[in-house]
Amino acid sequence: MKGEITFRLAVEEDIETIVAMLADDALGRERERCEQPLPDSYVKAFKAISSDPNNELIVACDGEGIIGVFQVTFTPYLTHQGGWRATIEGVRTAASVRGQGVGTELITWAIQRAKDRGCHLVQLTTDKKRPDALRFYEKLGFQATHEGMKLKL
Amino acid sequence: MKGEITFRLAVEEDIETIVAMLADDALGRERERCEQPLPDSYVKAFKAISSDPNNELIVACDGEGIIGVFQVTFTPYLTHQGGWRATIEGVRTAASVRGQGVGTELITWAIQRAKDRGCHLVQLTTDKKRPDALRFYEKLGFQATHEGMKLKL
Repeated sequence: MKGEITFRLAVEEDIETIVAMLADDALGRERERCEQPLPDSYVKAFKAISSDPNNELIVACDGEGIIGVFQVTFTPYLTHQGGWRATIEGVRTAASVRGQGVGTELITWAIQRAKDRGCHLVQLTTDKKRPDALRFYEKLGFQATHEGMKLKL
Repeated sequence: MKGEITFRLAVEEDIETIVAMLADDALGRERERCEQPLPDSYVKAFKAISSDPNNELIVACDGEGIIGVFQVTFTPYLTHQGGWRATIEGVRTAASVRGQGVGTELITWAIQRAKDRGCHLVQLTTDKKRPDALRFYEKLGFQATHEGMKLKL
């Protein structure tokens, strides 16, 4: 890692780098298509995310470029007296900086962002095939109080 | 249950009935405030939900009124080749109709709505203190592949 980490909203020129990071992962490589040219579905999704005030695709950068990414979604609910929640998804750090605490900085930043947006809760689901990720989030204060259930369509 | 179940978007006049249903539950009664007048935070949240094209607060009605509620959020992600997901939250059925299959109709409707919106996945988290809910969702095809982690702010 070179220098301080800074955070900013992703821009369209970042998509290729982000998809390469998403694909550079045991689970990600089975489901992403990191090709040239990039499938148009990624660009469409990026535009949908960046035009939605309740979705933020955030990149973390060091002096040399993007070293981490995640998406945070802010959702209003009637439950909990009409409380807003922040949902974190698609968290990845670059292979070159793993083990240097970048993930902790990412999630710490996301938690602060959720506070700034007035959320009462931050939530995420983590695949049971990633036991290290579970321990990582527990260290940051998350509790695995819920089952994360998925249905593929 | 009286007659066929129909589904529609909730309107502001439904909020009191919905909050009463959210509060009529072992976990819900600790966190909701079903008072007269209703805390303004519920109305504010309702307005935020109903003005967001990616959020739908749905009520199920029989011939006599509202018998079920849930919220579904549609979210674009870069992951899964830029796929959209539907997240279901705040599912409740009226105590008067429990055990009559209303929950199954609610979730089946939500799954179809997710398909209509082009989602590749439907997801939800269910509190580990609700083992019956886990079995209910498993019967409908959901798999508890993930840990659902929460951090209160």
